[in-house]
Order: sequence, then C-alpha cells, then structure tokens
Amino acid sequence: MAPMNLSRLCVHTMTTKPWSLTECCWHYAQAGIPHMTIWRNVLEGLDLKEAAGVVADHGLAVTSLCRGGFFPSTDTEKRAAAIDDNKRAIEQAAALGAPLVVLVCGADPGQSLEKSRKQIQEGIAGLLPFAETHDVRLAIEPLHPMYAGDRSAINTLGQANDMAEALDSPWVGIAVDVYHLWWDPDLETEIHRCGRQHNLLAFHVCDWKTPTTDLLLDRGLMGEGCIHLKKIRQWVEAAGFDGPIEVEIFSSRYWEQDQESYLRQIVEAYEEYC
Amino acid sequence: MAPMNLSRLCVHTMTTKPWSLTECCWHYAQAGIPHMTIWRNVLEGLDLKEAAGVVADHGLAVTSLCRGGFFPSTDTEKRAAAIDDNKRAIEQAAALGAPLVVLVCGADPGQSLEKSRKQIQEGIAGLLPFAETHDVRLAIEPLHPMYAGDRSAINTLGQANDMAEALDSPWVGIAVDVYHLWWDPDLETEIHRCGRQHNLLAFHVCDWKTPTTDLLLDRGLMGEGCIHLKKIRQWVEAAGFDGPIEVEIFSSRYWEQDQESYLRQIVEAYEEYC
Repeated sequence: MAPMNLSRLCVHTMTTKPWSLTECCWHYAQAGIPHMTIWRNVLEGLDLKEAAGVVADHGLAVTSLCRGGFFPSTDTEKRAAAIDDNKRAIEQAAALGAPLVVLVCGADPGQSLEKSRKQIQEGIAGLLPFAETHDVRLAIEPLHPMYAGDRSAINTLGQANDMAEALDSPWVGIAVDVYHLWWDPDLETEIHRCGRQHNLLAFHVCDWKTPTTDLLLDRGLMGEGCIHLKKIRQWVEAAGFDGPIEVEIFSSRYWEQDQESYLRQIVEAYEEYC
Repeated sequence: MAPMNLSRLCVHTMTTKPWSLTECCWHYAQAGIPHMTIWRNVLEGLDLKEAAGVVADHGLAVTSLCRGGFFPSTDTEKRAAAIDDNKRAIEQAAALGAPLVVLVCGADPGQSLEKSRKQIQEGIAGLLPFAETHDVRLAIEPLHPMYAGDRSAINTLGQANDMAEALDSPWVGIAVDVYHLWWDPDLETEIHRCGRQHNLLAFHVCDWKTPTTDLLLDRGLMGEGCIHLKKIRQWVEAAGFDGPIEVEIFSSRYWEQDQESYLRQIVEAYEEYC
C-alpha cells in the first residue's frame, strides 16, 4: 500500500465530539493529521493561552474556529449580544492562531428571510474592522435549505457569493460545505465564481446518507452517501483552492462509537473518497 | 364572525391519514370542504368505480391523484416498472375524475442528479400520449433539497420550469408546494415564469416548523411555522392560478389526534393564514 498523504487533512473537533481539546490534539497528531478546526465548546473552562499551548505542543495547525454568526433576531438586544459574541469568537481565533472564523449566519423564524439576510450583512459589515485588527477573516457558510427556518437565511452558494461580493472586503469570504450544497444545480458555476472573487476560504466534507434520519446529527462519513466528493473537490481546486480538506461530521451514531477506531475510518475514507 | 368561504379549500386524504376514503369524503363534506386530492393508499382494496361513486355521492370534486413519478433508477427493469405504475396512476385518476396526477419525480442515490433528471424527463415524455388519451395532466412537483438523495432530483421551481418548458406539452405542468419551495430566493420570479408558461397546475400549503424534528412527518399546520403563506398565495394568483388551495400535511403528531377536531383546526387555519 502506498503511504498515505494526509498533508491536507483537517478534522473538526466536533467530528470527534466525545474528546476534549487535548484528546483531539493527541489523537489527531498520532494519526498524522496536520490540521484541526476548533469548535468553541472544547474551549469552555480552558484558559486560551493554555489551549493554544496544547495545540502547538502537538504540532497542529488551526484551520478555523467554529463558529460565529447568528446575527438575525427580531430583538435588538439579541442582535447586539450576537455582535459581542462574534467579537469574542474573533478574539479566541486570534489567540489560537486560527486565521478564520466560520459563520453560521442565523435566521429568525419571526421575520422574513430577506430581513434576516439584511441583518446578517449589517452584522458582518460592522465586524470587519474588528476582524482586520485581529488578523482574522470571516467565512460565510451557506447552510442547507432545511436550516432556513432558524439557522441560516443563506442557503445557496449563490446567495453567499452575492453577500461576500456586496461586502467586498479581504476580511470576508465563504466556507463551502458539500453537505449543504451538493444538491444545487448551480454549484459548479458558483464555486468558480467564488474562486474568481478570491472568496473561497474553506472546504468542508462529509456525506449525505439515504435515508437521513435526523436533520442535524445524521451526517455520513465520506463514501457512505450520494455526494460526488471528488467531483466537487475538483471544482473547488479548479477555482484556486488549495487549503485543508476539513472533515466535519455531526453524527450521534459515530459519537457513540470508539473514537480512536472512528478516527482511523475517517483517515481511510479521506484517502479513498476525497 | 363572517361566514367562512371555503370554495377553494382542498384537503389531501394523506392529511387525515387515519381515515379511509369514505371517512375522508364524509367528514370533508360535513365540514363544507368542496375539493379533495386522493392519495393512492386509500384506494387499496377498493373497486375504482365504487371509489368514484363514494366521492360523487358526497359531492366532492377531485383536484388530483397523488402520486406518480419515481422514474430514475440505475436498474432498467425498475425504470420500466415505474412507467407501468405511472400508467396505472393515470388510469386511476381518469376513473376518479381527477384531471391531474402529481409526480414525485424520484432520484437514485447510486447515480448523479443530472442522470436522474434525464431519466425523469424521458419518463414523462414517454407518458404524455397516454396522459392525453386519458385526459389527465401530469404535474412535476419540485421537492425540498433535503429529498434530493432519494425522492426527487428536481429541487427548485426553476428546475421544474426548465423541465416543463423542455417537454413543452399541454399535458405537463407543475405543482407548487410551499413546504418545498418557501426558502428559495428566486421563488417569486419562478412562480411568475411558471404562470406565464401556463404551467402552474396546483398549489399545496402547510407550514415549516422550527424546530422540525423529522425529515418527512413533521409538517406544520398553516400558521404554525415560518412560511409567509399569504405572500406566496399572492404571487401564485398574480401568476394566474385560481384553482383549489390544497392542504397537504404529513404529521405523526396530528395523525395521533382526533381527526375530526383536527379537520376543524385545518379549516380555521385555512381561513386565518392562507
């Protein structure tokens, strides 16, 4: 067997949710995984400098911090609180050496999607000086239309491109996640557009299972579903992206299993299907 | 209170799934509901003439038969079987006086969405002479992208419009269901396009709940969720549609309740939110 080339593999701490930050770092490093994306839940109760030290001690590079966003609300105070929370996320990213904060932009079912999108755009625009000061970029992540009700009013790459281009700043771009976007007939075109505008900042992979039994926690391991991952990766690379390939899987089923053997499956699936 | 105007209200038999065809007819008529859409499960074990008699005896008009479709497959024999089944649906519709068969077009996770769409288009094209002979039209129903894996490779009204226009026949059009399409930023534009091409054949309503706890069986009653029903109805009517407003709700929760009081809730929700 050829030696595996994992130089572009990144794993999200949420993918191996049962593990602490230290456990993630230790196991990823042992498995030869060079990149990680840190979800904020693993930082709870930790001193940020200490957390950055753990990451550095294991030689891991931090691809991004997940997640900021959730800008829209019918409630002015909640919108202000979201801005504060996003600033905190930017500070955390800077402290951890993460060049990027991924934004799950939010939606409030009590108002129209158009209004939520307007609040998202205003929210991001207001954060850009803070992002620049901290040398951290923001990535709009379009979410699958099944999340339009309450998680994101940005549901296609076309909409994310529209917003990133309207904001027109080197501090904002887009995270392309195959789980959210695979079904879109305009995906190839919009990926090229995203790359052309230098907005393609991150690439997340997993798979879409049939049947899918839960709206949130039943994502598949690469190769387990119907997403043509290699084709989408080709589009993304033709659009100029050469960053880490990030494995982001929410799965009650996998979280119940032994995480060490699951991490081996992730590495194998990455090699075979990505 | 003003007397209720239910002249355009239609209920799908699947909405009150616990009821037989006869029970649906009896209760809908009692409630003053003039239109019904018949799902094929309630026809099982019934003679078609007898079924048509039950419907006629209660003075109900049949809006459509649900459902045909499921054209794509990697297996040639399954594709042929689907054509046969669609012919049977057309015959059933004709026997029941339904002018329309709604198509859930299908998708096979073992092949690309493009290939599935090609098979859908070929399948429908092949059925058109049979549909014409039986004086029954076919309605492509675009399904929410969360069903792209295995239920429908047609996930936006734009795609349905493309296909209906390519087929270019008075025997094929489109069913617009708010549940599947509400999130689409191009919805208004595509509804107008659909009407302009005389392809808008049916209009289905329910609501999108937040949170939604099941991919199939957690639809909301109108007013319970975040869909701006009146706005979409306005678009549909501005596009020339003046047919029945069809209430199609799959909901384990409502099916467990007393169906008579649920039907009263449906009538009230129709009056208030549609």
